[in-house]
Amino acid sequence: MNEFYNKDIISIKDFSKDQLEKIFTSTDKMIQLDSSQRREICKGKTLGYLFYEPSTRTRLSFDSAMASIGGNSLGISNISSSSTQKGESLADTVKIMSIYSDILVLRHTLDGSSRFASEISDKPVINAGSGTEEHPTQAIQDLYTIKKEKKKIDGLKIGIVGDLKYGRTVYSLLYGLGNYDVDVRLISPESLRIRSDSTYDIKKNIDFTESTKLEDHIDELDVLYVTRIQKERFPDEEEYLKVKGSYVVGQDLVNQMKDDSIILHPLPRIDEISTEVDKTKNAKYFQQAEYGKYTRATLLGLTLNENGF
Amino acid sequence: MNEFYNKDIISIKDFSKDQLEKIFTSTDKMIQLDSSQRREICKGKTLGYLFYEPSTRTRLSFDSAMASIGGNSLGISNISSSSTQKGESLADTVKIMSIYSDILVLRHTLDGSSRFASEISDKPVINAGSGTEEHPTQAIQDLYTIKKEKKKIDGLKIGIVGDLKYGRTVYSLLYGLGNYDVDVRLISPESLRIRSDSTYDIKKNIDFTESTKLEDHIDELDVLYVTRIQKERFPDEEEYLKVKGSYVVGQDLVNQMKDDSIILHPLPRIDEISTEVDKTKNAKYFQQAEYGKYTRATLLGLTLNENGF
Amino acid sequence: MNEFYNKDIISIKDFSKDQLEKIFTSTDKMIQLDSSQRREICKGKTLGYLFYEPSTRTRLSFDSAMASIGGNSLGISNISSSSTQKGESLADTVKIMSIYSDILVLRHTLDGSSRFASEISDKPVINAGSGTEEHPTQAIQDLYTIKKEKKKIDGLKIGIVGDLKYGRTVYSLLYGLGNYDVDVRLISPESLRIRSDSTYDIKKNIDFTESTKLEDHIDELDVLYVTRIQKERFPDEEEYLKVKGSYVVGQDLVNQMKDDSIILHPLPRIDEISTEVDKTKNAKYFQQAEYGKYTRATLLGLTLNENGF
Repeated sequence: MNEFYNKDIISIKDFSKDQLEKIFTSTDKMIQLDSSQRREICKGKTLGYLFYEPSTRTRLSFDSAMASIGGNSLGISNISSSSTQKGESLADTVKIMSIYSDILVLRHTLDGSSRFASEISDKPVINAGSGTEEHPTQAIQDLYTIKKEKKKIDGLKIGIVGDLKYGRTVYSLLYGLGNYDVDVRLISPESLRIRSDSTYDIKKNIDFTESTKLEDHIDELDVLYVTRIQKERFPDEEEYLKVKGSYVVGQDLVNQMKDDSIILHPLPRIDEISTEVDKTKNAKYFQQAEYGKYTRATLLGLTLNENGF
Repeated sequence: MNEFYNKDIISIKDFSKDQLEKIFTSTDKMIQLDSSQRREICKGKTLGYLFYEPSTRTRLSFDSAMASIGGNSLGISNISSSSTQKGESLADTVKIMSIYSDILVLRHTLDGSSRFASEISDKPVINAGSGTEEHPTQAIQDLYTIKKEKKKIDGLKIGIVGDLKYGRTVYSLLYGLGNYDVDVRLISPESLRIRSDSTYDIKKNIDFTESTKLEDHIDELDVLYVTRIQKERFPDEEEYLKVKGSYVVGQDLVNQMKDDSIILHPLPRIDEISTEVDKTKNAKYFQQAEYGKYTRATLLGLTLNENGF
Repeated sequence: MNEFYNKDIISIKDFSKDQLEKIFTSTDKMIQLDSSQRREICKGKTLGYLFYEPSTRTRLSFDSAMASIGGNSLGISNISSSSTQKGESLADTVKIMSIYSDILVLRHTLDGSSRFASEISDKPVINAGSGTEEHPTQAIQDLYTIKKEKKKIDGLKIGIVGDLKYGRTVYSLLYGLGNYDVDVRLISPESLRIRSDSTYDIKKNIDFTESTKLEDHIDELDVLYVTRIQKERFPDEEEYLKVKGSYVVGQDLVNQMKDDSIILHPLPRIDEISTEVDKTKNAKYFQQAEYGKYTRATLLGLTLNENGF
């Protein structure tokens, strides 16, 4: 029996290094399968999604992952237009969706929502983003991309730039990186530094420095992970305009990077990375999106098959 | 040839006791099939849904039922955001959907809409709720749940509590129960009593009494069917608050019920049934939701296969 | 290898007469296949749709076409409720959807959007309507309907009536008809005549006359193609009311038509064609919708299979 069978995927913190490596190996296998073999993996299985917070990207990533392994998807992509408007509790909605499907994919604004759902559901629950910190499938996608493109994770210098305060993705990635021996540079405007209540936990497992200047670190990084800075996060526009330019990754910055460094982004991207960068060999964010499809297909395949695939 | 092949499902009134029993027997069989056998039943068939009134629950129930028997679903879940905004008639929309699919599932605010659609469509039409009275697949789901959980319907004492005036579900259930020898207690606030224009028809087939007090009947019931009371149905809030508490089913009420009685609810539930009741052996409303998936799969399978399944 | 394999479908202008005829022959074959053979054609393939302009009709036509040949569909039916609200570029959205699917179907308000998308996407792109002129799959559906119902296109007298200024469908049809030897009558209110910047191109390939009176031509037409006149296109309501009645096709007009003439409409129809006409043998607009499903299935099948089907 594979150890992920019938298990919930709630937090990246629940995964050991050994488990992550097993998932990566399975993802390698998933990629190598031909499409007709892949379609047998979850043939006739149904994924039920409940998105209390709309996220087209994440929903389509799961939808296409499930389709690629022969399953289908149904659910509610924007819960505000559903029965729950009538006031149905999360618990009841989860119970019903666990009747309608073989696995639940939940996105919710609140921390703990997925853990709560997993206690109620008869079927395994995958957290597709919740609260301020958790987005485990994104973290697995990101870690797999690093592993695949750099051939290793241990020993890398990783810069994470942008909105480190509100970016759920960043926290999940940092917790995931905690399993590896990495050197992390957190680069953000002063007002968007990582939250101090989280640094305590992260520091237990990771060496990181904080800085406001991307240029100071650009030449030493193996991985540059860029996130979006949302204008609305700033108290006034002036402050936004002040920092905005300094975090745009353009050809000039890429020129300063190590030859074999890679640039990642969870997408969607607005203008944090100039489109001129897309053509450089360092740009791996679209590759990352593709790996996201395969890592999700892998997680679904492992969770829904007693003997894996 | 099975008698349901290619037939519309418009009103519960169109079904004889014999037909209902045949559907129940087929549902038993549906449940016993393993999932790969089930997926052959409507393999490659397409369900087309047209929801003029949004109902996530009913739509997902059909969607998951169709997926479980190998078919797929497409359609319009909220017609206000569609071409019909441009003023297309129901007739034209139905004609087109009958080209795009093998069976139509229609939800509409108006009485008679499904009958009308069935006259236009080349493909069979299933009424997924229309007007004030008709929701035949819900009634079949409810009757099946009673039969399955109580091993019979004849001879039972059935209490129906809540909003009996506006609840479409209640009327369909009562018409369905008209095929059986049952003893019905209708329990509601004075202002939400069953509509007098319907009682004439219902009385022809069913003995029922009306009452405002749930406590007076709770100890004699075999089945307690709870429906939601919507605040907005009351002329003023004061009147609402007056009756509200007396129709909430909590542990205290369950304690007064017969040991083998069952509690049903069409869902979604707001607070008509306390969550503490969920764990009692009497609570069968989530089981009822699951049976809804199987009864719908059965109806689709019978309607779309000349020789049944 | 079939010549349509892996090719984009951007403009009807890109298709030669020979290519159109090949598509028609393939559509004939598609119609003759039984449903289980059809489902093998795109088994396990995924269509990704991106609708920047909602069009339920076109989306469902593609969705049902893809389902009929064994594939599935996913995507965004109304892009305003998606990630692109966060400001993602069309280019990025296209890149991601080309990762999630095997073929892209794009609907967009801007001319050139599909050509642009096809340059970005690794996967073939089908234009499902863009800008003011292009809707190639609708034109192919229309031409196929004429061919199928009249047994030929060359030599026909074709009247196109309604809003010729804003109707994207009309332009695509005219460009498609440019491959044939036809005699075209354009009939519209003065203010909704075909745009002069397009007539230059169209005149190179087609003989057409312009007129405001449908009655003057009704008895000579082999094909009457009716389009909707939208009230909001008129500067004032009075002008609208003046012309409105004269373009409604009723039984009286049908009586004046040649016995074997056919009436087409891209749908949805409001009141341009009276419902009394639906029952005449001339009415072929619902047949046209059905052919639309088969021509789209054919285009998908040819584009996604190296050796056709």
